[in-house]
Amino acid sequence: MELSTGYLLFLGDTKDPLSVKTSRGIADWRPEKCVGQISMPGCEATVGLPEIDFKNAVDKGAKTFILGLANRGGVIAKEWIPYLKQALEHGMDIASGLHKRVADIPEIKQLADRLGRQIFDVRHPTVELSVGNGEKRNGKRILAVGTDCSVGKMYTTLALERVMKRMKLNVDFRATGQTGILIDGRGISVDAVIADFISGAVEALAPENEKNHWDVIEGQGSLFHPSFAGVSLGLLHGAQADALVLCHEIGRGHMRGLAHQKLPDMKQCINDNLAAARLTNSHVFLGGISVNSSALSIQESHIYCKKMAEKYNVPCVDPLRQGMKTVVEYILSKKA
Amino acid sequence: MELSTGYLLFLGDTKDPLSVKTSRGIADWRPEKCVGQISMPGCEATVGLPEIDFKNAVDKGAKTFILGLANRGGVIAKEWIPYLKQALEHGMDIASGLHKRVADIPEIKQLADRLGRQIFDVRHPTVELSVGNGEKRNGKRILAVGTDCSVGKMYTTLALERVMKRMKLNVDFRATGQTGILIDGRGISVDAVIADFISGAVEALAPENEKNHWDVIEGQGSLFHPSFAGVSLGLLHGAQADALVLCHEIGRGHMRGLAHQKLPDMKQCINDNLAAARLTNSHVFLGGISVNSSALSIQESHIYCKKMAEKYNVPCVDPLRQGMKTVVEYILSKKA
Repeated sequence: MELSTGYLLFLGDTKDPLSVKTSRGIADWRPEKCVGQISMPGCEATVGLPEIDFKNAVDKGAKTFILGLANRGGVIAKEWIPYLKQALEHGMDIASGLHKRVADIPEIKQLADRLGRQIFDVRHPTVELSVGNGEKRNGKRILAVGTDCSVGKMYTTLALERVMKRMKLNVDFRATGQTGILIDGRGISVDAVIADFISGAVEALAPENEKNHWDVIEGQGSLFHPSFAGVSLGLLHGAQADALVLCHEIGRGHMRGLAHQKLPDMKQCINDNLAAARLTNSHVFLGGISVNSSALSIQESHIYCKKMAEKYNVPCVDPLRQGMKTVVEYILSKKA
Repeated sequence: MELSTGYLLFLGDTKDPLSVKTSRGIADWRPEKCVGQISMPGCEATVGLPEIDFKNAVDKGAKTFILGLANRGGVIAKEWIPYLKQALEHGMDIASGLHKRVADIPEIKQLADRLGRQIFDVRHPTVELSVGNGEKRNGKRILAVGTDCSVGKMYTTLALERVMKRMKLNVDFRATGQTGILIDGRGISVDAVIADFISGAVEALAPENEKNHWDVIEGQGSLFHPSFAGVSLGLLHGAQADALVLCHEIGRGHMRGLAHQKLPDMKQCINDNLAAARLTNSHVFLGGISVNSSALSIQESHIYCKKMAEKYNVPCVDPLRQGMKTVVEYILSKKA
């Protein structure tokens, strides 16, 4: 599954700038793929792209209409349907990260079928998967792991990919969640596959590659999150990573969504992730620590990162403040 | 989901006694629920129940027609369809552990709908699940874990339940795979749920209960099997077990299906399972070791179990040879 570029980003009629986070991610990380944004009357959000109509979007090469917006309950608002139809009529496919499937709306599905367009409900994997086998494969892989959910694993891996591209390395970002998939135009939502196929899905997502090729694999959840750790472990085994990058948000009081569950000790978190990863790659090492330090001042953040780097003997950065370059250099130095 | 008893077991036209393993499990573990077996001309397998026709089965209280047999690729043979129809026409539901869904055969589905019968494709969970939350819940729970897949976890937990029932304890077996579900008539096939819901499925399967109630939860896979460890970890977290029973097959050369993957060290396997289980129950302990010692003589088996019991300071038994009673007594002594 790979979305056709360019993208026309649909913002709906939202009043809440946060609800277009996915579209903003696409505009931030893949601006070269975006031809513009389209919003309904009354929309108060923007992702900073030119507002454009369907006709002009097509002239500029729009091939996929993207619903990169959140709605209460992940549903598709009735008011959006005329826009979806217009997109199809203008020759575009539709890609959505919403929980409810666009393909489940009969009038949209029928129109798409009649016009020969595709609908990508990226939260719902459609590929035929196999169970993982853990066999050694060529190519190099970096996986983001976390002390918790939503600690910046996607941001960290996208930032790693960007730096590595600038360094002229042969590298691909591998998306494992719906936002990452819409940003990159491909990937597998691993928390939505059948449980038996978690590691197999990751083996398919980051398959054998040239010896000097790097896959930077987006992580999901945390080994220490009682809701989602199964996904995280399957990801660790399927990724067969050479290097792990641990992601952490400073100041988080408890595991996301679970007030009773405290965060893991960082040393234990590193050790346990490495131990689990060793099952499929005995040479895996910690490549760095990536923190969301927005709770700290810039100066405090530097002090924190320096301390962590000394304690764990790897680079520690906030990707928004110090960038990921030192992490990449460290990984390359260990894996020349 | 709970199957109506009694059961009429369908053996098809198989020549291979192994292919009716699931039906044999039902006849062995739940004989009181079985009214008989039905086989097609040429069938060479039996599970030792009286051969019976549909009319007599109904008279004896048959309510569910069970496809507890394996077929190449898990498909439903064309020749079975008249039998499925007859079962429906005689007022029975259908339950199947096959990979292909009975409910996907239009003529069977339509007939069932028309007659108001149910079809249970137990390999495919239909319940609405939530993500796990890891919150403390009342009741006591035992979970089987394994050094590998197919090392006797279902057998061990069924044997535990049987002994505990004889000891007049308040106990339920909780099935997590299709064979266990068909045996017990209820359960959730946890390796077939969406990955996000593994631990949530187990929380739903073994919910809060009376303080003196025991759930004995069937395990799946192994933390050390690179194909399925995600399922095993979600099970560990969702089970919130008080005691783990480690299952092991003596003499296995490599992880099932993966010639390149060696078995874990038993000490590490115990430690890692306990460490993972502690995330949702800090008081979890090893309740015993259950081995399949069929590769050894009875005397060798006794020596082996004695050695393991001394090494790990818990009872070690082959449930077929020594029974599970010492394990139950040990768990009770720790958890009075």
